[in-house]
This record gives sequence, structure tokens and C-alpha cells, in this order.
Amino acid sequence: MRGLMMDVPLLISSLIEHADIYHGETEIVSRTHDHHLHRTNYRAVHQRSRQLASALEKLGVEKGDRIATLAWNDFRHVEIYYAVSGMGAICHTLNPRLFAEQLVYIVNHAEDAWIFVDPMFLPLVAKLAGQFEKTRGFVVLTNADAMPEIPDCDQEVLCYEDVVASGGDYSWPRLEENTASSLCYTSGTTGNPKGVLYSHRSTVLHSYGVVSPDTLSISAHDTILPVVPMFHANAWGLPYAAPMCGTKLVMPGAKLDGPNLTELLENEKVTMTAGVPTVWLALLQHLRENEIRLPHLKKVVIGGSAAPRAMIEEFERDHEVEVLHAWGMTETSPLGTVGTTLPRHRDLETNDLLDIKTKQGRGIFGVEMRIVGDDGEERPRDGKAFGELQVRGPWCAAGYFKGEGGDVLDGDGWFATGDVATLDPDGYMQITDRSKDVIKSGGEWISSIDLENEVVAHPKVAEAAVIGVPHPKWDERPLLILVAADKDAPPQRDEILDYLKERIAKWQLPDDVVFVDELPHTATGKISKRTLREQFGDHQLPTPGD
Amino acid sequence: MRGLMMDVPLLISSLIEHADIYHGETEIVSRTHDHHLHRTNYRAVHQRSRQLASALEKLGVEKGDRIATLAWNDFRHVEIYYAVSGMGAICHTLNPRLFAEQLVYIVNHAEDAWIFVDPMFLPLVAKLAGQFEKTRGFVVLTNADAMPEIPDCDQEVLCYEDVVASGGDYSWPRLEENTASSLCYTSGTTGNPKGVLYSHRSTVLHSYGVVSPDTLSISAHDTILPVVPMFHANAWGLPYAAPMCGTKLVMPGAKLDGPNLTELLENEKVTMTAGVPTVWLALLQHLRENEIRLPHLKKVVIGGSAAPRAMIEEFERDHEVEVLHAWGMTETSPLGTVGTTLPRHRDLETNDLLDIKTKQGRGIFGVEMRIVGDDGEERPRDGKAFGELQVRGPWCAAGYFKGEGGDVLDGDGWFATGDVATLDPDGYMQITDRSKDVIKSGGEWISSIDLENEVVAHPKVAEAAVIGVPHPKWDERPLLILVAADKDAPPQRDEILDYLKERIAKWQLPDDVVFVDELPHTATGKISKRTLREQFGDHQLPTPGD
Repeated sequence: MRGLMMDVPLLISSLIEHADIYHGETEIVSRTHDHHLHRTNYRAVHQRSRQLASALEKLGVEKGDRIATLAWNDFRHVEIYYAVSGMGAICHTLNPRLFAEQLVYIVNHAEDAWIFVDPMFLPLVAKLAGQFEKTRGFVVLTNADAMPEIPDCDQEVLCYEDVVASGGDYSWPRLEENTASSLCYTSGTTGNPKGVLYSHRSTVLHSYGVVSPDTLSISAHDTILPVVPMFHANAWGLPYAAPMCGTKLVMPGAKLDGPNLTELLENEKVTMTAGVPTVWLALLQHLRENEIRLPHLKKVVIGGSAAPRAMIEEFERDHEVEVLHAWGMTETSPLGTVGTTLPRHRDLETNDLLDIKTKQGRGIFGVEMRIVGDDGEERPRDGKAFGELQVRGPWCAAGYFKGEGGDVLDGDGWFATGDVATLDPDGYMQITDRSKDVIKSGGEWISSIDLENEVVAHPKVAEAAVIGVPHPKWDERPLLILVAADKDAPPQRDEILDYLKERIAKWQLPDDVVFVDELPHTATGKISKRTLREQFGDHQLPTPGD
Repeated sequence: MRGLMMDVPLLISSLIEHADIYHGETEIVSRTHDHHLHRTNYRAVHQRSRQLASALEKLGVEKGDRIATLAWNDFRHVEIYYAVSGMGAICHTLNPRLFAEQLVYIVNHAEDAWIFVDPMFLPLVAKLAGQFEKTRGFVVLTNADAMPEIPDCDQEVLCYEDVVASGGDYSWPRLEENTASSLCYTSGTTGNPKGVLYSHRSTVLHSYGVVSPDTLSISAHDTILPVVPMFHANAWGLPYAAPMCGTKLVMPGAKLDGPNLTELLENEKVTMTAGVPTVWLALLQHLRENEIRLPHLKKVVIGGSAAPRAMIEEFERDHEVEVLHAWGMTETSPLGTVGTTLPRHRDLETNDLLDIKTKQGRGIFGVEMRIVGDDGEERPRDGKAFGELQVRGPWCAAGYFKGEGGDVLDGDGWFATGDVATLDPDGYMQITDRSKDVIKSGGEWISSIDLENEVVAHPKVAEAAVIGVPHPKWDERPLLILVAADKDAPPQRDEILDYLKERIAKWQLPDDVVFVDELPHTATGKISKRTLREQFGDHQLPTPGD
């Protein structure tokens, strides 16, 4: 029997409409290209996003069309989010940090009809314009007076403010809630980038999850500065969550260095900010060196990669700022877990609390999680056993755009994250490795990251990597590859192994040690284990019979 | 184009499952029939609710069957909520305060298959057993040792703990999210009671809305005591919202007097409680007389009827407890608005803040609201104009069980609440009248409640009612009916009208005053305006030509 409740779809347009009605005067402050501070509010952004939707219709944009952005965080980018999704088209955020060839691949794969670009990216897209197969033109995110010189290219180039001005009255359509709303490609270390296609339903449900008190706890009394870019998994959903709550937004534009962030955090009385560890390293250094305190800031959300323990400690101890350590991925909209504490943690000592805060946190209501072994069987939630992390829920991806990557769910609908993790009895998840990097030794898994962390603590080691290499008896055994701190006085093989013996279980000890002058790195600065596996995949271990 | 996110339904069973996994040890404390405190936790309640679902299957309960409860707030009632809805049957909460004939009507209209009753209600249902047409039996909410003597009746009578024990392993089915989950009848002042049929989707979405920081802000760090009964619009959704957050629940059972509530609030360190104004009058009096402070209590949610200004003031001033004034109805799941403040209210003086807090609050994201005039046109959100309040959203009713009441939505899907209200520019709603009681004078509306509130402040008036009576020129004009404080020295007609002239606009002044010995009241103690309209509907006003 069906319930007799209203069939009202969950729509992205409702978020900005709600902000207009209840928080029309609440500000959206943006750092613009010329370092000027632009101030608008939800009422104006709602009005202009409808006007833009009308203008896009006049430009021939239809429901389902992909409209791309190549832009930093500012109010115009917010307007595009709502205009494009609200009208039933798909807002496709492009990452300006991509290599040109990836950008061309993604624009063509998505078949982007228009690309909205910050003035600074116009030369880049103009250069690639001839390679964009379906793109009809570029819209430059500025006003007529500030329009840059238009490079010679075979695409139409429009000025954003002129486009908005060409729009008329517009009412949001009542879409089906599973309608695609936005598109974000994952870079992926192997294969082509794959597009995650969000829906209105997934976005609104994710927003409800994000704002909850035990997730990020977002309220009309907050002011949020999303350092995380809007092209990085929709700035973790904050441009949707903020209008749901009527929260003031401070958009930092392109410059994310310590001094610029500090100025915005102070002057705009920001209560909450969010970003990857790298930006916080720079910010903390700047605060330390200039002895600056941030009296208004209450919470900092750290995700994207693991937050170092020292970083969490410094924020909480020196700035009385609560660190919310979060985990997610493009495929989870992105928030999956967040490290909010439980009542029993209230009286914990700092170190014990940090043990909990360095974990990636508990699953939000709406994201189911489990860890499974090679056999596909669920592994225990005891904080020790680790297995591949799988997720399921209404804001998790069921597949990629145009079927790339094939069927990605198992028979019960679980999505394999590619991370290896533990889950403790309270549900706190801790990433221990990537599943392609974990060493599978005789049915047991050995975390390459755990070993590396132990080895690099040795004074004679500069950098270290552990990979699994084939072993006749155990399938795989760990091989330690390291760079000596002083190449003229490298440590002895046994010196390192003896050091490790005191710190890890004997069966996890690497079977061999290889010294190299340097380790290969990826474009984003991570050690390239793929290259190491190619180089050392057929390394002969001295332990074939053990 | 459809998004490519997982098709995972929003289900009530996910709430208790989430609480089990992440907050298994969190307590549910219940005051039982014998004044004993029973302690269980989410893990056990999840386990027992699955066992009960299995037992219900063995009793022949099928998806869509209605299973009724006639019970106070305790852990067993929570188990039934999850067992019945989780298995795809419909949990129908009966109000023990109903007259016997209403109870019989509702049980037969709902075709309840089984009724779960607190031992104290067994004599009542046994007496009516012969009139229950489709009911197969009663389950008494206690264990075998405490079973009361079974009255002579032609229904099967089972013991709850025996039923649970008969259940086996059980996994929650994956239902379609619009499946009906629970049923609650509105009493309604006219016509038969009508059933609101909630769905899994509406219940889960309502929970997300309820827990948000600017709604009730519910967290794992809270302890909630729902004074509002589970048969009163699902205790305002708290038995669903609490497990979503892993919040400790304190269930007060049948005794809701000042001393009992105080004991639970103190001993269980309750941080948040919720109920109608009547219970708070009794609680505040008890606290005042015994000079008791409640150091743990942070928030009290007041709804069901308007919270008096003095009550809000006493809680906030004497107990440093934040009052959240809320509005809703059975048809809105029930939460529609809540009076949380905005950043600009931070520095307000007490009296100005109370002006805001006496309003019913702002619409939650998920409930759209508007006010309309007689012509169906939307009226301005200026805090002055009033019109009939209409609502729309995924947790609002689209109709009543078995089509009672016919089509209840207008062409755009709005539901008319029957309340007359103002909306201010920030979206704060204030109820000014019931739409059947408002006086419609020449296209303008006059609030009967506003007039009554002014008149009863006069020292010579004990009680007053204002109704609209037909007028040849203005359609309706107000007639004031009052009871003198001292019947031997009643006030003069002009004395009252002169008093009012100083306080209200001239066009709102009643056209006549009638003195009566007493006013008619409904069963719930409200003035029966329907009776007054029958009595005085053809009262000849002295102002036919004005």
C-alpha cells in the first residue's frame, strides 16, 4: 500500500528558493580577479540564476545539455550551479589543474555545449577551442568593462554579465527528482577519466546529511569559507548545504595562500572552513609565523587526503578550532564519513582524542559502509581487521557517464571504493591503504602505508615505498624501496629490518630492501606505486621457500 | 537525462539499523507501569524489533496490514514502530483519550488486524472487543509474569514478551520508499476522524528536516525526553529522529505530571524535551514551588497549541532553557515551522526577542508555505496581512485514508491548513486564527483570537468569545460574547467597547456585545465556536446600515 503523502520532488532549485525566502539578505562575499571583494546576497543570486536560466534557454540550451565551468569559487559560479541544474541541464565542473589533453578528452566526452570560464582561463580554452568537438562557445565570467582581449579562436566568446542581462522572467520547472543535475570527472590513476552524474535527489539528500549536527552542523548562524574548489566534488556540497540553511558564504577566488585566507577568515568572521591538508599547512605556517589567532573560526573540515595528526593537534590546541576529519570521493557526492565525537569521548585525554580524530570518522546516515576481504565476505568491525571499503546509499554513484568502467556495483548494490580500511565498533573508519597497493600475503593483508610510516621515522631514511611482489608460497610479499637520507652513509639492510622488527608483527616484515636514488612521483606529488610495480614487479625475493 | 546515482530507498528500518551500528550501546530508558525504570539500548531494540517482525509474520500479518497501538511512550512502543513499519505493515497509533465510540469508528475504519495495548487499556479494549470488526486480537505490552487478568472477551489476548520470543531471524525487506508506514487519525472538529497515511520516504525526509541545526538540532550528544505521546503525530517524529542521530531517549510512560517529569529530566540528564503547553504549565509550577533548577536541560520544544509568552519567558529567564516554539499538524508529519533565531537577533532585548519567539517560527527546508486570501491569491509576507496558511512538501499529506474528505489539494498541490496566519519578511509565521473562526468583513479579515485576547485582559471579564455574524453590507461583523468576572457587577456594554477602542483599529470593533452566564466548551476544553455560531448565528446586529 502506498502512503498518501505529497509527491513533491527533491530539487536543487528549492535550495536557492528557500534561501531567498528565508535568508534573502544573507551575504555571499567573493574575492574577485582584481582582489576586490564583491558582495551579493541569496535574493540577488536567486534572481540572477533564474535570469541566467532564461538566457541559456535563449542560447538554445535544452534539458540534459552539459554546460561546463572552468572557474574558481565565486558568486557567479554559484549562480551557474543553480541556473544550469535548476533548468534541467547539467552543470559540469572542469578542473583547471588538468593537463590540456585530459581537458580536451573530458570536454568532448561530456559533449559540453558551452564553457563558462574565469578570464584567467580564456587563453587556455581558446588554444584548445579547435579540439572541442561539440562546444558552441565560451562565456567569460566578468562584465563588459573588464572583458579581456578575445583571442583568435573559432568559438563564440560571450561576456557573462551580457548573457545574464539578456535573460527574462523565469520560473523553475518541476523536474523529476532523479534528473541529472551535475557532472564531475574523477581523475583516476588508470584509464580515462570517468564522469559521476549526480541527480537532484542525490544532491538534496546529501545536503540534508551534510548539515546535520553530527556531520558538519551547518546553521544560519555560521559563515562558511569553502577553500575546496567548486570543481572538486562540488566543493564537498557546501554551495548546496549553505542555502539550505541560509548560511553566509565567503568565496575565496583563485588565491588560496595563507595571507589571503587569513584576511578573509578574519574580516568576514568565518566560523567554518573546509579544504585539503595542503592548504592548511600553508595557513598554519602563516598563522604561526605571524602569531595570528582566529577568534571567530570554530570548525575546519579536512578531507581529500588524510589529515596529519600534528595538523589536527595544532588547530585544536593553538586555535581552539574543532577539526572535522572527513572522507569521501567524487562517487559519494562526496561526503561519506566525518569524525565527530561521541558523548563518551568528552573526558578523553588529548592523545586518546587524537587517536580518534586521525581516523576518517563515522558514516553519515545515508551512507552504509562495510569492509570485505578477497572472498567478498564482510570482515569484522573490530578496528583491527581490514578489508576493501564498500559503500551504498542514495548519494553514491551507481555507474559512470556513458557506461565507462562498466558495471561498478556488486550483486547487492555495493560500490567498491578502492580504499582499504578498518571499521571500529563505534563505526569509525580508518583508511589503511589503497586496495591496489595493499600487499596480499597468504590471505592476510599488509598495509603498505603502515610500513612506510614506520620506515620513514628512521633517521637514516629520506623516503620509502612498499609494494607487493609475487611470491611462490604467499602470493605476494612486501618489498621495501627506500631513499637514504645521506647517500654517502646509507643504512644497512639489516639495520632497517631490525628497526622494523621492534615495531610491527613479524609476518609483516618486508622480505627485501632495495635502495634507490629517488622514488617516482605522480603529477600531484604522490609516490607512483604503479611505476614502482613496473620497475620492481619481477624482483627476485631472497625468501622463495619461506 | 537521469542521474547515475544509486536507487536506494529511504526506509524507516535504515534508521534503527544505523543506530544499532553506530550507537548500539546508547540507551533507551523507559518509565514502566510499576514506576520502575527500564533500560535498554539501540542494539537490543533493533534486535527485538526484527524478532517482533518475524513473530508478526508468523501471526499472519502481511505487508499493508494495519497494526494498532494504544500505548504510552516506552521502549516496547518504539520496537513496535520499527517492527511494523520495517516489515511493510502500517503502524496505527490510537489515542487513548478518545471517546469509546470514536475509538471503535477509527479501529474499524483502519481495519486494524491487531491492537498492542498497555495493560491499563486492556479493560477498555476488552469492553469494545465485540464492536471491532476486523481485529484478530490484542497484544498486552508486558511480560508473562505481569500479565493482567484477561477480561472475558471474544478476541485473542497475547502477551507481548511471549510474542517477541516466538520470533526468529529476520532481515528487513527492501520496500519501495513510498510504501505506507504509519497511520494517524486527526480528531477534527467536524465530520469523522480522518487518517493521515505516512510513507517511509516522508518519515525519513521529515527526520532529516527535524534534526537540522536550525530546526531542533538533534545530536548524539543529546538526551531527549518526548513528553508528547507517540500517538500524537508520532511524538513529533522524535522516535525516528533520535536513532538517526544516536540520541539517548527517555520515555516517560503514562505519568506526565511535574514531579515525575522533573525526576526524569534531572536523573537522566535530559538536554531536550518536547510537548504541549499544558504539561509545561504543570512542570514550571512544580519547579517554581520547589525552587528546582534543571542544569542539564538546554531546549524545550513547545507545540500543539500556541506557547504563551510568559511560559517562553519563564523557561528562558529562570532556567536558561532555549524555547523552540514549533507549529505543525498531523498532516505535516508534523513539523512545519520552528522558531529558531537568526544572526541579527543576537543582540535583541528580551522583549523584542520574545516578540519573535511567540511567533510559530520559520518553515523548515522541505515545507513550502504561503498565505492566501478569499480569492486564492497569495498575500504579502509583510508580517501584517493575514490569509489562510497553505503548505506543500514531501512530508505533507496529499489526502486521507480511503479518500475521506475528498480532494484536499488545490490545483498547484497546496494543502489548506485551516489556520489563518501572517508571514513576516524573514518567513516567521504567526497563527492569528482558525480559518472557520476568522471574521470576514468587507474583504478584510478580523482575527477573533486577537479580539478575545484584548477583551479578557479587562478586569471585569472572565471569559470572552468573538464570532462573525451575517451583516447586510459587510458580509460578516464581529459579535462579542462574554462572561462577567462578577455576575452581580457586570461591565457595561460601552465600557467594554470604549476599552477596546483604545486598543484596536476602529473597523475591527465588535458591532455588539452579548452577556452570557457561561460559554460552551469542547471535550478538550476549548471554547466551542461552532455551538456559539448555532446559538447566535442569527443575532440581529444594531448596525445594519453602518
